[in-house]
Amino acid sequence: MRLMKRLSILLALLIPFAANAQEKAPPHIMFVMHGGAGTITRGSMTPEVEKQYRDKLEEALRTGQAILMKGGTSVDAVEAGIRVLEDSPLFNAGKGAVFTHEGKNELDSAIMEGKTKMAGAVAGVTIIRNPISAARAVMEKSPHVMMVGRGAELFATKMGLEIVDPSYFWTERRWKGLQQELLKEQERQANPHAEIKSDDETRHGTVGAVALDAAGNLAAGTSTGGTTNKQYGRVGDSPIIGAGTYADNDSVAVSCTGTGEFFIRWTVAHDIAALYQYKGLTVEQAGNEVIHKKLEAVKGDGGAIILDRKGNFAMPFNSEGMYRGWIGPDGVPHVLIYKE
Amino acid sequence: MRLMKRLSILLALLIPFAANAQEKAPPHIMFVMHGGAGTITRGSMTPEVEKQYRDKLEEALRTGQAILMKGGTSVDAVEAGIRVLEDSPLFNAGKGAVFTHEGKNELDSAIMEGKTKMAGAVAGVTIIRNPISAARAVMEKSPHVMMVGRGAELFATKMGLEIVDPSYFWTERRWKGLQQELLKEQERQANPHAEIKSDDETRHGTVGAVALDAAGNLAAGTSTGGTTNKQYGRVGDSPIIGAGTYADNDSVAVSCTGTGEFFIRWTVAHDIAALYQYKGLTVEQAGNEVIHKKLEAVKGDGGAIILDRKGNFAMPFNSEGMYRGWIGPDGVPHVLIYKE
Repeated sequence: MRLMKRLSILLALLIPFAANAQEKAPPHIMFVMHGGAGTITRGSMTPEVEKQYRDKLEEALRTGQAILMKGGTSVDAVEAGIRVLEDSPLFNAGKGAVFTHEGKNELDSAIMEGKTKMAGAVAGVTIIRNPISAARAVMEKSPHVMMVGRGAELFATKMGLEIVDPSYFWTERRWKGLQQELLKEQERQANPHAEIKSDDETRHGTVGAVALDAAGNLAAGTSTGGTTNKQYGRVGDSPIIGAGTYADNDSVAVSCTGTGEFFIRWTVAHDIAALYQYKGLTVEQAGNEVIHKKLEAVKGDGGAIILDRKGNFAMPFNSEGMYRGWIGPDGVPHVLIYKE
Repeated sequence: MRLMKRLSILLALLIPFAANAQEKAPPHIMFVMHGGAGTITRGSMTPEVEKQYRDKLEEALRTGQAILMKGGTSVDAVEAGIRVLEDSPLFNAGKGAVFTHEGKNELDSAIMEGKTKMAGAVAGVTIIRNPISAARAVMEKSPHVMMVGRGAELFATKMGLEIVDPSYFWTERRWKGLQQELLKEQERQANPHAEIKSDDETRHGTVGAVALDAAGNLAAGTSTGGTTNKQYGRVGDSPIIGAGTYADNDSVAVSCTGTGEFFIRWTVAHDIAALYQYKGLTVEQAGNEVIHKKLEAVKGDGGAIILDRKGNFAMPFNSEGMYRGWIGPDGVPHVLIYKE
């Protein structure tokens, strides 16, 4: 009897463990995206337009998450999520890119893998439908990290990426945005002392993603059309490794959005990573230190998404709003737009 | 008597201070340059060629130092020193730039000021005689930080910089270097398993400078022709703020040389600055951590020059040699080439 009782107690103790072992734990994954920062307020948005943005961000989040749940890599998820936003006219990347001063669309993009620190970037490309995929091709299929202009386009063409006519990137909304900016430029030249503000929201924007996959590897990617009315040949922070895009398994994955010139000069993505790694700050603390303290002091507006290998993430921004969201193993997308 | 004695002692004690105050202390300035890292050994160099390199480096060092002694800014010194090396066919920058796969010369450059963190860069330019001056024009006369290709060339032309025919950059030595590389590429394709090494020294190289001026401000600049046989449109680390070039009065000024792709992926210049600022390492320790520990582990070859506001500097490199030198207020240039 005693032995039987002991055995039954032992069995009762072991059963929950056995059940847990059979019921597989969900993979420890996380996927965070942004769709640009700027003067995005409730007052400037109709419910219909807001719904379009929310729906598209949710679609992009779900796309990346599905890949991560199937055991796909963080690089796969970042590329796929960004492609969804590049193919939408809503965001300043791919299809919805803003116009340069000369009325062209010049696109920039970068991607980076945290495990190997492999990276790829393209800048000033005009005929590649999905610049994020061209950045990935540079990373995986060239000996280089960064390629620009016609050289990058020839490479992407050789690699079999989808090539489009430059007119693919023409959208009425962005064209009007350029005309408004050109008018404001004329007004500024006529009245050098008047403060004539640009419409931030239509003027810039960027999309980006950071991912943690089931194998514990980080990745980051960013894609943009730059800023409305930018000069021919201008490159912003998005394709600059360490400025707009950075990923390192020893620290964090970061993708930025904002006035690119400040993000290059403050090496924002790598500075956040360095504060996390060398000073032991959390993702929130490191993000706040750079986005709020350092950049606000010089009126450098924008934000960043930051993710570490434990799945901790932060989405700091110092502008009115930032399209942003995250999705974890439960598959529920969370989208935010305003300060709230 | 007692009083007189005391007074005379006091006078004797004060006189040296007064003399010191009249004899103006030399300005606390420092100027450090590099002319590229690679397989540079005593065996590969004739005394005549070595003398050419030493003479030109000394000339560049003296040029920058003279500006700093006259109270010129660190940016002035960096630009002037680099222009001397750009105008020489010896170094892979400006006149001596290497050739791309297509037989062209595409030049990259960046400059950064430590006080304001203002920065400028150009990449893939083919008709600007002194790319470092174009980088400075972008920094000071455009709203942007980085401009590439034709757009950068149009901007430089508008700014009145000296424009040359692309043939200006043709030199027999670099042309032969490309032909050798193309042959090696064919051999590699025919024998994929044979290890056919490129001639490092003719293949890449870069020039750079870091300066501390009498006002206590740092600056850094870098200029390069990239790597021999690079693909059309490839951009290396030199024009990437945070990778090949960085300056911040809160930390250090850095200019790098080496296999650019590694320097971009490891955000070398900013990582050295972050280790100095956030972990309290010295310029030597921070340089060694990145150049020797991190880069050597992945066979990323090259070096860096690093300078802080106290005038402390380091010149770490993990290749066979690095053209390098420094000059202080005494006006004596020190030039080193090999490991010694």
